[in-house]
Amino acid sequence: LDSGTGQEVRRMLKTLTPQSIAQLLESSPPRIRQVLWNLIDRDVEGEVLQELTDEVRSQILDTLDTEEMVEIMEGLDADDIADILQQLPERVVSEVLSAMSETDRLRVESVLAYDENTAGGLMDTDTISVRPNLSLDVVLRYLRRHEQLPESTDSLFVINRQGQYIGLLPLSKLLTTDPSVTVREVVSTDVEPIPADMRDTEVAQLFEKYDWITAPVVDENNRLLGRITIDDIVDVIREGADHSLMSMAGLDEEEDTFAPVRRTARRRALWLGINLLTALLASWVISLFQNTLDKVVALAVLMPIVASMGGVAGSQTLTVVIRGMALGQIGRSNLRWLLSRELGAAAMNALLWSLVMGGVAALWFDDITIAVIIVAAMLINLIVAAMAGAILPVVLRAMRIDPALAGSVALTTVTDVVGFMSFLGLATWQFS
Amino acid sequence: LDSGTGQEVRRMLKTLTPQSIAQLLESSPPRIRQVLWNLIDRDVEGEVLQELTDEVRSQILDTLDTEEMVEIMEGLDADDIADILQQLPERVVSEVLSAMSETDRLRVESVLAYDENTAGGLMDTDTISVRPNLSLDVVLRYLRRHEQLPESTDSLFVINRQGQYIGLLPLSKLLTTDPSVTVREVVSTDVEPIPADMRDTEVAQLFEKYDWITAPVVDENNRLLGRITIDDIVDVIREGADHSLMSMAGLDEEEDTFAPVRRTARRRALWLGINLLTALLASWVISLFQNTLDKVVALAVLMPIVASMGGVAGSQTLTVVIRGMALGQIGRSNLRWLLSRELGAAAMNALLWSLVMGGVAALWFDDITIAVIIVAAMLINLIVAAMAGAILPVVLRAMRIDPALAGSVALTTVTDVVGFMSFLGLATWQFS
Repeated sequence: LDSGTGQEVRRMLKTLTPQSIAQLLESSPPRIRQVLWNLIDRDVEGEVLQELTDEVRSQILDTLDTEEMVEIMEGLDADDIADILQQLPERVVSEVLSAMSETDRLRVESVLAYDENTAGGLMDTDTISVRPNLSLDVVLRYLRRHEQLPESTDSLFVINRQGQYIGLLPLSKLLTTDPSVTVREVVSTDVEPIPADMRDTEVAQLFEKYDWITAPVVDENNRLLGRITIDDIVDVIREGADHSLMSMAGLDEEEDTFAPVRRTARRRALWLGINLLTALLASWVISLFQNTLDKVVALAVLMPIVASMGGVAGSQTLTVVIRGMALGQIGRSNLRWLLSRELGAAAMNALLWSLVMGGVAALWFDDITIAVIIVAAMLINLIVAAMAGAILPVVLRAMRIDPALAGSVALTTVTDVVGFMSFLGLATWQFS
Repeated sequence: LDSGTGQEVRRMLKTLTPQSIAQLLESSPPRIRQVLWNLIDRDVEGEVLQELTDEVRSQILDTLDTEEMVEIMEGLDADDIADILQQLPERVVSEVLSAMSETDRLRVESVLAYDENTAGGLMDTDTISVRPNLSLDVVLRYLRRHEQLPESTDSLFVINRQGQYIGLLPLSKLLTTDPSVTVREVVSTDVEPIPADMRDTEVAQLFEKYDWITAPVVDENNRLLGRITIDDIVDVIREGADHSLMSMAGLDEEEDTFAPVRRTARRRALWLGINLLTALLASWVISLFQNTLDKVVALAVLMPIVASMGGVAGSQTLTVVIRGMALGQIGRSNLRWLLSRELGAAAMNALLWSLVMGGVAALWFDDITIAVIIVAAMLINLIVAAMAGAILPVVLRAMRIDPALAGSVALTTVTDVVGFMSFLGLATWQFS
């Protein structure tokens, strides 16, 4: 990618779609990313920008001035422009908006009025709507006056004189019905309008459940504001699913895989610091039993096993519960059943593996007391772990703390403390 | 849900959509699930079945006889029927197929010919195709002869006399173009046909990248076999994203949140057993240093901190790399950059937190030697952890082992062994 080959790369980039260029940028380290960006054709820059994840996009926006931004955003949809503007400082946003045409500005502003994680922030205002009293023939003639329909249009919206949403008119219906029929007779009311302030994750659940492709967004008076299409929803689903995975390791789902070293270090430092605190707590528990450890050194050898098995058993329960919550399956009514199922499964596995471990310990240290102690400690810790894994996410959610983020730290703290406490506590009681 | 209220529940179920009933079944414990299933209206059973996850569905299929199955599958799409049949034993499949009408059977068989995780297994054979030499007017009249178009039809397929795929004719194009124009003049060739044997995850990446709603599926001779629609892709994306999350805890992404206690226990037992083996390995490492532990009991108190911090640092790297792989961002060309970034970030955080921990240890045990040892051991373990977190998934993938499944166990083994070895090893060298 040195200066000499710039022309070749530029030619190569010309053959790629905006989506492929965006993927290439996301898969490149920061320095190369900037070089590539400078080689992209001006007229695809906007589309490429729109395909990027928030974090990579904001890196690139940082290098642009207002004039370049206005130029780049020409030709993008209102929702995509709003998406980009939401990442810019207040001052830049008003500059960009004032440089836009009147209609474009109003459109973008109507999307910007909503939080980016709501239906209003996701919607596109570019809709085609018709009145119920028209005949399909009139609708067909009206459509034919358009150069083209907005992207992914598969339905028209039927609204009344006050602009209130009545129903959908799918294009396929329009094409298979006798043109003399009126819109009112064929309007489909299957798809319920989405309130503009509904959370994007809830909207995604509706789309997934009902296999929608387009859905109308309305204000509190049922007036049609815009539409949400499935391609925006796919991003929400992807991010939501990534959220659980990344949060459980203390990471952000928008995290750039190729973030520079300092930013990466800074972001992860906090999580490691929190973990150090919980590890110190576990160490303090161990230190309470120093006298016993001094007498029976075998305890120091075996104690990590009790803590580790509790951690693994608990994290299995935790993962199932967090996933079930993300899918909207877990509520008050079935929590008790789930908890007893988890306790039952944990009890069976605790019995199996603690007995195996007891046998190993008896043979290894030739000491039946230590074997009995580790069996008892594992039984206690695995059952507590299952309880904690099932209850912690529910409690955290009730406290409005993200269970995917805080769950695993909280769980490890419990399983370490209980693991060391039960094993060394029982040993102290036996050996002193 | 006792016998008396059966009628009320049945009435309540009548008011729900098949999707809501499916969600209700998935959120119910096994016994209640069976009771609910028996209360569902016969004519929505098929649709409900099709909405269920594989595991819950197979539980219900186990309770049905062939005749009931044939009845239930009437009116479902070929791809949905194939989906269900793939879960049944050979004998039942042929019985069900022979009870179907000729056209339906051929359709279902053409989908069944492909693996369920390929484009062919996902596709629907219910397409509308037109020839390029027709005028749009003829196409419009042809469509009007249909009662309705197949679900989520947003485009027609343009094929030649040999049935080979040429391009798409979006309904929106059909509605905005002069009817005297021929199909050839407006056909869109943006969407490339998908080979029937392409993996479903690859298909999903294409849909996500290009915001497709429908795409054609072709055989090796470019003959049109069927179409894939975005609603099937949403399921693939959801499952793929869930896969990383669930695998990292040794769970299956299809796992039923409400599986009965014995099945849950059995499934998790293996994972706990594997973990017990790695924990025993770590214990064996500790046992090599029993003499030192006997002399300096403070080491037993502090050693879990070294292992735990390594585990957390490593799992952050591991999660980022596994997610990057799932998104198709990581390849040979950028792996070296990623590794050096991870090492750099790990070094910075290792320096920060090992010094903090060194300070705490010096104050706590009033012993500067122990403080120096823990600083050195944490530096070693955190850097090894980052290396292992970045390299392990790549090595595992090359060995065709799922990195999401095996990565976390392998990593914990490394960080435990290296953590205990470096800390106790350095201590033995100092104190003897």
